[in-house]
Amino acid sequence: MDVRKIVIIGGVAGGASAATRARRMDENAQIIMLEQDEHVSFANCGLPYHIGGEIPDRDSLLIASPETFKERFKIDVRTFSRAIAIDRVGRKVHVKSLKTGEEYALSYDKLIIATGASPVLPSMEGVHAPNVFTLRNMEDMDQICSVKTVQRARRALVVGAGYVGLEMVEQLQDCGMEVSLVELKDQVLPLLDREIALPIAHELERRGVQVFTGRSVVELVREEDTRVGAAILSDGTRIATDIVIFGIGVRPNSGLAREAGLTLHTNGAVDVDAYMRTSDPDIYAVGDVAVYPCALTESKTWVPLAGPANRAGRLAGEHAATGRSLKMPAVAGTSIVRVFGRNAGITGLSEKRARGLGISADTVTIVAANHASYFPGSELITLKLVYDRETGRVLGLQGVGGEGVDKRLDVAATAIAAGMTVDQLAGVDLAYAPPFGSAKDPIHMAAFAASNQMAGLVRFAPYDASLEGLQVIDVRSQSEREDDPLLCQHIGIPVCEIRARMHELDPLVETVVVCAVGKRSYVAARILNGMGMQNVSTLSGGQTLRRLAS
Amino acid sequence: MDVRKIVIIGGVAGGASAATRARRMDENAQIIMLEQDEHVSFANCGLPYHIGGEIPDRDSLLIASPETFKERFKIDVRTFSRAIAIDRVGRKVHVKSLKTGEEYALSYDKLIIATGASPVLPSMEGVHAPNVFTLRNMEDMDQICSVKTVQRARRALVVGAGYVGLEMVEQLQDCGMEVSLVELKDQVLPLLDREIALPIAHELERRGVQVFTGRSVVELVREEDTRVGAAILSDGTRIATDIVIFGIGVRPNSGLAREAGLTLHTNGAVDVDAYMRTSDPDIYAVGDVAVYPCALTESKTWVPLAGPANRAGRLAGEHAATGRSLKMPAVAGTSIVRVFGRNAGITGLSEKRARGLGISADTVTIVAANHASYFPGSELITLKLVYDRETGRVLGLQGVGGEGVDKRLDVAATAIAAGMTVDQLAGVDLAYAPPFGSAKDPIHMAAFAASNQMAGLVRFAPYDASLEGLQVIDVRSQSEREDDPLLCQHIGIPVCEIRARMHELDPLVETVVVCAVGKRSYVAARILNGMGMQNVSTLSGGQTLRRLAS
Repeated sequence: MDVRKIVIIGGVAGGASAATRARRMDENAQIIMLEQDEHVSFANCGLPYHIGGEIPDRDSLLIASPETFKERFKIDVRTFSRAIAIDRVGRKVHVKSLKTGEEYALSYDKLIIATGASPVLPSMEGVHAPNVFTLRNMEDMDQICSVKTVQRARRALVVGAGYVGLEMVEQLQDCGMEVSLVELKDQVLPLLDREIALPIAHELERRGVQVFTGRSVVELVREEDTRVGAAILSDGTRIATDIVIFGIGVRPNSGLAREAGLTLHTNGAVDVDAYMRTSDPDIYAVGDVAVYPCALTESKTWVPLAGPANRAGRLAGEHAATGRSLKMPAVAGTSIVRVFGRNAGITGLSEKRARGLGISADTVTIVAANHASYFPGSELITLKLVYDRETGRVLGLQGVGGEGVDKRLDVAATAIAAGMTVDQLAGVDLAYAPPFGSAKDPIHMAAFAASNQMAGLVRFAPYDASLEGLQVIDVRSQSEREDDPLLCQHIGIPVCEIRARMHELDPLVETVVVCAVGKRSYVAARILNGMGMQNVSTLSGGQTLRRLAS
Repeated sequence: MDVRKIVIIGGVAGGASAATRARRMDENAQIIMLEQDEHVSFANCGLPYHIGGEIPDRDSLLIASPETFKERFKIDVRTFSRAIAIDRVGRKVHVKSLKTGEEYALSYDKLIIATGASPVLPSMEGVHAPNVFTLRNMEDMDQICSVKTVQRARRALVVGAGYVGLEMVEQLQDCGMEVSLVELKDQVLPLLDREIALPIAHELERRGVQVFTGRSVVELVREEDTRVGAAILSDGTRIATDIVIFGIGVRPNSGLAREAGLTLHTNGAVDVDAYMRTSDPDIYAVGDVAVYPCALTESKTWVPLAGPANRAGRLAGEHAATGRSLKMPAVAGTSIVRVFGRNAGITGLSEKRARGLGISADTVTIVAANHASYFPGSELITLKLVYDRETGRVLGLQGVGGEGVDKRLDVAATAIAAGMTVDQLAGVDLAYAPPFGSAKDPIHMAAFAASNQMAGLVRFAPYDASLEGLQVIDVRSQSEREDDPLLCQHIGIPVCEIRARMHELDPLVETVVVCAVGKRSYVAARILNGMGMQNVSTLSGGQTLRRLAS
């Protein structure tokens, strides 16, 4: 019998999925999985939560051991084994045992590269000090835990306000440390548009985290014992700390592929076809080392996240074992983070990314209750819907706020996968009962707003519009206005009085209507439109969004 | 100026949405909303939760008063005003004031019928007793509250185990009453397939509710004071009670439309076109009195739920005001209920409904953690995916279990709206971080299973299959098997030992592999397939589903 030999380099998300799917497709294949570290198939997304103690049991992060792979899947897992070169002509991988130093050649019929990505470290004196870390694997986690508990670190500095950075900040602050966060860009969560990210920054500050955006670390100051004791920021700020964690991004581990002459994508990740095959059809690349088809553009996209890695691995494993599979589904880059009970995430394109790509996108931003507001426990969420100005096609959704942000992202991710328009999204028949949503869900409200904007029924002023010099009408009740006055010149007319008090307004000047979240101002603007006023906008998300994102 | 006169009969979900959208589209239209009861635009989905006290503030259920409609929307709301006839030729509605008895004719250019549906009461002596209720409006709610608090009702009988019935059961039991539940069908939640409904029945019993399925109330026994003191069931059971609540379904209030000669659907609801127009193009019907386009079949569907009612009302209001609108989006009948912290719901077709319609549907049922199982608080959810056997098109999803059932239903509802296949659903890029889901979400797991089943990679034995006479292999660990033994003849071989112990099996007989939730049994079945065994099934959902649904 012709036994197929499949070699997989890398044993975490993509590699492990490839290995097990290959086995399920072909009981007889010879499957060898190389892993340079000690652990395979560990829950890397769970690492921050063990450091903070939210996941108390370290070993629960070890999803499948080499023994499990061997016994359950008949997979030959070789840990501490680094692939050092690929001989494509001879179809061999050169492997070095990191324990014995021994080197050997391993032949393959199909090779799957799942070497992942590595955290970026700046070139700076001190980044290799014993209390400076990135967080990639169980070993990093164990060392950070040790500094925290054994050495009783009291202060932490997290550099980089992306997902991993914020998870670390939350966990360290929650277990009693004093945490500072430094981010080069002028906002936390730089992937997201500003008004979606800022509520998270406020929450961080409210919880006592010191947030330094628009600044970088320019120097790590060593103590006498070689440990770093402080960092100097680009604006001269000095932050004393007992531990430094860098979460400023990752880079694909594509050196092996590059040296083997495989085609790389512009960002250095390995280029692949619809079946995750590299430019060598006997070699696949999956996970953070590879690119995926993009759900929103014609090009490939690099999305170093666990979900696509698992799906790509599964698919490549099947294709390597059988020679066929479905095509890799397009990736929308859907992602989410929890920060102290607030949630923020994105699927598809942000407004800034759409603009950067030259796509003619429009957006709407709404603030709405996550479930029936009369039902206990409702919380506000903010949704920003990005869509194609011409076709109405959904291009992206961002959300921030209380429970249920994930649900709305998932609905939008599905809509993006299907190529739905905002009008179609407005008609989706979502599950409603008071504990779960509203008869008009926030998703519907966002889609309605987009549909109205496309039809010219409403014009939105951006949440951060300067209102100076405009005719600003605050249509909230008098008591609301007194509790939370607009800080610009304005006319206060409750929405119910707008018809009767039309004569107080100048119908010809540029006008912005403001309320709490944008519902009443929309009603008022429609009234003004109906009474002949043309230049009327409603303030997007109302005072609530303006405050959340100021 | 030509002022359009729009009359709306009914002032709750569909009617209120129609009225306000019509106003936003046309500031000058004359809009009159007739409501035979006292309240308009109340939160009827919230009624059970005020009775149980979870929503303490009664008035929070009054979303918009007649005054709000008048002041904010310039809508002439006439409460206690019943439409008694429609004169289509003269384009007039005959109205009777229920306060004064006065009758008058009201002309219209466009008429919107939003008369809703009414709870069904059986024809039986006693159904009009002072402590027998249905739950349709604020008045019903107030009376039930009064019996509960003023008369200190201690025992309650709820008849009908649909959504409203179960919400009432939960709320009454939670506030300390002894509740009995009677359901004619042989399961609670008769809309759902049995294995999705049964976990809810178990939860009800665990919380102390007496559940009587497969039985009906045949007699209400009066006390001396005309109140009902007990009910006799079809099997002779006598249930003593202080209050009876019927939740056995609703009927469209289409008498007015029928008498006006408008075309009705087979179930008696008002037939409409794509713009919610009845057979008279000047008359619309929306909400529970009307039908909608069905997302799954070519026919119309009657779905008396709040979500579609609101969307249809909004659309008809726009069309009545402007003569144009989008078409009514197809309805999937997505719905959900929370019962003591368990959730159950459906979108699209159940298996039994698909069978009833003669659709060649296949199903898969999976049991999976709602978020990363290593992250605290994960709970199991069961998902049943129904899909077209030939095309793979998603036809329906049902879910039951812990948090996040609503999210998965919403994803599937979106997939149904888009006509996606199970292969496409398997590729949707959902939001993942450990608090929210898994890199392979339960939605993916269900879609993978369906895809595998379509490809012939797996055969599922139904959760309730008789295993007698088959070769049953339990692939759980020895300790799991000892804690929870299979009750039929079986061979215990942990999945990791299956290759080595193949010789203990008869390779020729029909074989079922069992584990805890169906993951290891699938792996084991693939091994057995790969070693040449043909007649191997895996038990769908494993022992967990078998136990949940037994």
